[in-house]
Amino acid sequence: MVNQKILLSHGGGGRLMHGLIKDLLLKKLNNPILSELADSALIDYKDKIAFTTDSFVVNPLSFSGGDIGKLAVCGTINDLVMSGARPEYLSLALILEEGLEIKALEKIVDSIALEAKRAGVYFVTGDLKVVERGAADKIFINTTGIGRVVKAKRLSVKNIKPDDSIIVTGEIGQHGLAVLVKRNELDMEFNIKSDCAALSDLIIPVLKQTDAIKFMRDPTRGGLATTLNEIAQSSNYGIIIDEKSIPISTKVRAACELLGIDPLYVANEGRALIVVGKSSAKKVLGLLGKHPLGKNARIIGKVVKTPRKSVIMNTVLGTQRIVDMSSAEPLPRIC
Amino acid sequence: MVNQKILLSHGGGGRLMHGLIKDLLLKKLNNPILSELADSALIDYKDKIAFTTDSFVVNPLSFSGGDIGKLAVCGTINDLVMSGARPEYLSLALILEEGLEIKALEKIVDSIALEAKRAGVYFVTGDLKVVERGAADKIFINTTGIGRVVKAKRLSVKNIKPDDSIIVTGEIGQHGLAVLVKRNELDMEFNIKSDCAALSDLIIPVLKQTDAIKFMRDPTRGGLATTLNEIAQSSNYGIIIDEKSIPISTKVRAACELLGIDPLYVANEGRALIVVGKSSAKKVLGLLGKHPLGKNARIIGKVVKTPRKSVIMNTVLGTQRIVDMSSAEPLPRIC
Repeated sequence: MVNQKILLSHGGGGRLMHGLIKDLLLKKLNNPILSELADSALIDYKDKIAFTTDSFVVNPLSFSGGDIGKLAVCGTINDLVMSGARPEYLSLALILEEGLEIKALEKIVDSIALEAKRAGVYFVTGDLKVVERGAADKIFINTTGIGRVVKAKRLSVKNIKPDDSIIVTGEIGQHGLAVLVKRNELDMEFNIKSDCAALSDLIIPVLKQTDAIKFMRDPTRGGLATTLNEIAQSSNYGIIIDEKSIPISTKVRAACELLGIDPLYVANEGRALIVVGKSSAKKVLGLLGKHPLGKNARIIGKVVKTPRKSVIMNTVLGTQRIVDMSSAEPLPRIC
Repeated sequence: MVNQKILLSHGGGGRLMHGLIKDLLLKKLNNPILSELADSALIDYKDKIAFTTDSFVVNPLSFSGGDIGKLAVCGTINDLVMSGARPEYLSLALILEEGLEIKALEKIVDSIALEAKRAGVYFVTGDLKVVERGAADKIFINTTGIGRVVKAKRLSVKNIKPDDSIIVTGEIGQHGLAVLVKRNELDMEFNIKSDCAALSDLIIPVLKQTDAIKFMRDPTRGGLATTLNEIAQSSNYGIIIDEKSIPISTKVRAACELLGIDPLYVANEGRALIVVGKSSAKKVLGLLGKHPLGKNARIIGKVVKTPRKSVIMNTVLGTQRIVDMSSAEPLPRIC
C-alpha cells in the first residue's frame, strides 16, 4: 500500500476509503472510542470542558523540528492548554489532494500518532476527503479538541490588572523561521529548529500548583507582537515590554537580520505568553523552569494603565517604540 | 467590504484577519461563548456528550436546495443525531483560497448562520486559514460538533438482531444528483433539489418517545448501498431490501436512468437509515411521518441471519441481486 497514490476514490466513502481508514488511520491511531467508527465519539464528562478547532495548511509539509502532523496535534493541544484545560480527546479531518503519495501520508500519520501518544491525547473521531489534483496542496489537516478544565477559577483577560507581569515561556521566532528557511531551501545554512511542542506538560502542573496564572495565550500566527496587542486590546490596558529581556536565540537573531524579518512577528508553536500578578511572577518562573520547555522562560514586561490598548517596547537603544499588530502577512502558510 | 477579495493577509493573524472575523464571522454567528474569542470554547457539561468532525469540499459551492455552508452545518448535526445526541455546539474552521470574493464568503456564512439558527446549535469556536491562489479550490469548511446524548441506552450496531426492520426516512439520491447536475450545468433540465437538511427535529422527538431505535446512520457518501453494507459488516448479519419499497422520486429515477447512475450509490444529506425491532417498526414510521422530513419514510428491508455481511436486493423483476459496497468514486466532491 505504501507505494500507491491517493486517488479520488479514497475519498468516496466506498471500499478504498474503508481500506485506507482501516489499514492506515485505525492502525496507527487506534483506541476503544475511535475503533467504533461511529458517526460521533461518545465521551463521558462530568466537568467543564474546553473545545477548540484549528486547520493546518503549512507549506512545506515538513521542516526542521516537525511536520504538519506534529503541528496539528500540538496546535490544538496548546489552544486547550491556554484555556486552562488538560487536552483529552481530538478529532482529525484530512483533506487530501489526489496524487499524494501514501508514503507521505503515512509519515504524517506516524507523526500525529507519536505526538498524541507523547501528550496523552486520543483522536476519537475523524473524516477524510480527497479533492482532485490542483484543488488542494497535498494535505490540509483539521484537528478539533476537547479538554477538561483544570481549575474552578477561569482564566480570562478580565483578570488582568495594571502591574501584572508578562512571561514568555521560551525563545521566540523559531517555528516561523524554520518553515521559511525550509521553504526557500536555506535550512542547511540557517539550521533553525521549530519550537513546535505540546505545552500540556509544561503548563498544567503550574496551573495545579498555583493560582497565580490570570491569562495565557500562545503567540502563533502574527507572533509575540500580535498576541500582546490582542491582550492589550481585550484587557483595555497597555503593555510595556523590554527588548533586552525577550529571549531570542543567536541563530534566530542572525537569521532575522539577514532576511530582514522582525522576530516579534514570527509565529511560535511551542511558546506561551502568561500573565501573572507581579508578586507571583518569580514563583511561576521557577515552576516553569523545572520543565525543559520552560528553562528559557523570562519576564518580558508588564501591564500598565496607559496608554490603553497599546504595546510599547523599551528598546536596547534606550528609546521607546510602539509595537503594532501585524497588518500584512509576513509569512503565509506558516501553520 | 463585500466587494473586496480574500488576500493572503486575511489568514495572517493580523489586523485584516481580525477585521474579517469581527465584521463578518462574529457579526453573523455571535453568541456569548463565541464572542469571547478565546483559544477554546468553554462549555458546562454534566452528561454524556457526542463529538464529531466533518470537512466539506463540495463543488460547486451552491446547488439547488443548499450550498457548502448549509451542508457543513447539517452534515455535522446529522452525525451527532445519528449517535443519539442533540446537537448543541459546533466549531467552524475555514480554509479560503486567495482571491475568493468576500461576497461569496458572506453568502456562505449567511447560510451557515441561518441553518445553525434553525437547528438551535451554536458555533462556539473557529479558525481561519488562507492559502495562495491555486492551493485550494475557493473554500473548504470543517465543522466539528458536540451534542448531549439523549438516552441512557446507547445506539449501537451491537443492538441489531435478525428480523429487525430497516427504515429510510425519505426519498433517496437527491443530494448527489443535485450537485452533479449543477456541476454539469444540467440543473435547469433536471430540476432536482438536494435533500440537505438537519435531522434533529425529525429524529430527537422519536428517540425521546420510544426505546425502539437500535441504530441509525445517514447514507451520505457512497449512498444507501454503502451504508447498508457498513451495517451488515459491522453487525455481522445480512440485510435484505425490497427494491420496490425504496422511496425514489420520479425525477431522480429519470435522471439516474439518463445519466447511467445507480441511485443506491448516490449521496444523501438529509436522510437516515434506522434499524428498529420488527414489532416497533410501524410505530416509528408513524412518529417519523408527523414531521415533513419523515413523510416519505418507508420500511425498506430487514436484517437476516445469513448471508452474513451481505446486502441482497429483491428486485422489481422478481430476481435477487447482491448490492455491493461502492468501490470506485462515482461522484467526487459531493459534500
